[in-house]
Amino acid sequence: MDRTFSIGVDLGGTNLRVAAYSLEGEFLQTITLPTRLADGRDCVVSDLCESVSRLRVIHGRTGRLVGIGVGSPGPLELPSGILRNPPNLFGWDGFNLREAIESSLDTEILLENDANLAALAEQVCGAGRTTGASSLCMLTLGTGVGSGLILDGEIWHGISGMGGEAGHIVVDPEGPLCGCGGRGCLEQYASASAMIRMMSEASTPVANAREVADLAKAGDKAAQAVLECVGRALAIALTGAINTLNLPLYVIGGGGSGAWDAFAPNMFQELLSRSYIYRLTAASADRNSAFNANKTRICRAQLGSEAGLLGACLLGLRGTTAETVSAFERKVAS
Amino acid sequence: MDRTFSIGVDLGGTNLRVAAYSLEGEFLQTITLPTRLADGRDCVVSDLCESVSRLRVIHGRTGRLVGIGVGSPGPLELPSGILRNPPNLFGWDGFNLREAIESSLDTEILLENDANLAALAEQVCGAGRTTGASSLCMLTLGTGVGSGLILDGEIWHGISGMGGEAGHIVVDPEGPLCGCGGRGCLEQYASASAMIRMMSEASTPVANAREVADLAKAGDKAAQAVLECVGRALAIALTGAINTLNLPLYVIGGGGSGAWDAFAPNMFQELLSRSYIYRLTAASADRNSAFNANKTRICRAQLGSEAGLLGACLLGLRGTTAETVSAFERKVAS
Repeated sequence: MDRTFSIGVDLGGTNLRVAAYSLEGEFLQTITLPTRLADGRDCVVSDLCESVSRLRVIHGRTGRLVGIGVGSPGPLELPSGILRNPPNLFGWDGFNLREAIESSLDTEILLENDANLAALAEQVCGAGRTTGASSLCMLTLGTGVGSGLILDGEIWHGISGMGGEAGHIVVDPEGPLCGCGGRGCLEQYASASAMIRMMSEASTPVANAREVADLAKAGDKAAQAVLECVGRALAIALTGAINTLNLPLYVIGGGGSGAWDAFAPNMFQELLSRSYIYRLTAASADRNSAFNANKTRICRAQLGSEAGLLGACLLGLRGTTAETVSAFERKVAS
Repeated sequence: MDRTFSIGVDLGGTNLRVAAYSLEGEFLQTITLPTRLADGRDCVVSDLCESVSRLRVIHGRTGRLVGIGVGSPGPLELPSGILRNPPNLFGWDGFNLREAIESSLDTEILLENDANLAALAEQVCGAGRTTGASSLCMLTLGTGVGSGLILDGEIWHGISGMGGEAGHIVVDPEGPLCGCGGRGCLEQYASASAMIRMMSEASTPVANAREVADLAKAGDKAAQAVLECVGRALAIALTGAINTLNLPLYVIGGGGSGAWDAFAPNMFQELLSRSYIYRLTAASADRNSAFNANKTRICRAQLGSEAGLLGACLLGLRGTTAETVSAFERKVAS
């Protein structure tokens, strides 16, 4: 009866994943379902809560549940838990996700922007662990570009949870209109979707970022130009972050990072010319150099598409404070 | 003998200011000297330490010194205290300012980037106090554009003190070359110097930002165009900060903020079109609205040119931990 575990939920636009995770760092069980957006949000919340309840019952027999972490696409207002025009959950604007889940489960949850949870997972179990960095910014190159910020080991979600939108850093003030209403946002140049779009505009349709990289490697000029643009846009956005935040680590993940080998050289070259703080602080190639301890490092994410789910589980484990546990146990007992 | 006080130092490129400051929030005495850069850094450090010692002796008779805060122009590597190519302290590259001051005073000091100290002062005694914000980003429009970041009441100086360079956020990737080696940095458009430079390029020389604002108000087209450019550049840089950090407060100070009334309208208009997080979170004009508690606010700095000195004094007061005080008293006693 002594195993401590959490439950983590990754609510994605395509898949809904729910897992039980032990304090020892082991996935005990994972449930994956399609996110039934077409059937309405009540249906999705019901699927979510049923899966959580199942894991709670099964693993509660031999363990002690200390917290439920839930990751949702943003913008997500916190602590309220209200979604604000989330592009990947169409029709959910104004929906109070926290209230819906908590009233169904009859317990408190720890709710967070999914990009922040992926960043937390990278900090605890991925690139942060490898480099010893307790602070990092993670950019996720997917349909859009999401971002998560970990400062001194804690998620930074700003005053109301509405940060995490580094995809809408302005890279070119006169650039193309973005879905957000702005112009020339990072996401118009560096998301996986942008890479696919730019290739299609160059009359070479591809399915994913990896294909763009393969084409570039094979000498395709269009693919090389697209990846140069990706590296440049990332460098411009990172220049702002590096010059203002001076974090030790920036991590690039998501489907678009499949083209890392092809866009990274230009990104690093542009960074060296654009950011003087990067020039002053770039880590040397020798990872173990003591001189690197306070340096700036930019690397590819180490965890794959499970980062968000893992982050939700890790957040759940952080529910392990005396108050949370006892409040939780009172609720379960009553 | 019971009055608790700190000593704060503001080491500027032009003036050196040293003050004793009481826990009750009162300047007890301020010494202002020219910064004798032409006579070499040893001379400047000696002037600085002599002034600190004077205040330590005078106010130590009736009070208890708990900490010495020193603000320096950056880039300043922390915790080492080594200056890295500081543009306003020419010839000081590689100089260990902490070591020089500490060995002369024979005590520990609290050393910090001056822009961070101005931000701390605004948070504790200025715009942060008025709005109740415990986090803020401050942009100082002076010779360059400096920045300071306060997160949950604490200075964020990054992994090695090398942040605070929001002046080098890229506003236009193809813009003019900047002294930092980059292109199109915020500081090329929004510093007080940039305003003066742009007016001079338009054949209307001015002495300061306030004059640009006066000319614009009187209908001068060149001045209006310059201030439109300032507002636009600030909006582009702030869009990145707002979308990624979601802070409750952004404060604009320094000499350039003398033109606030003239550039702010365009800045707010550009922000509304460029940052969807700003659109979602902009505070209403009613300052006291409860609905504003978690909103985004952008305002002019409330403290004048003494913000850096005040911040150094406030930092000194934070030396009031049991360890610091006792370590300090041991040193004084020995």
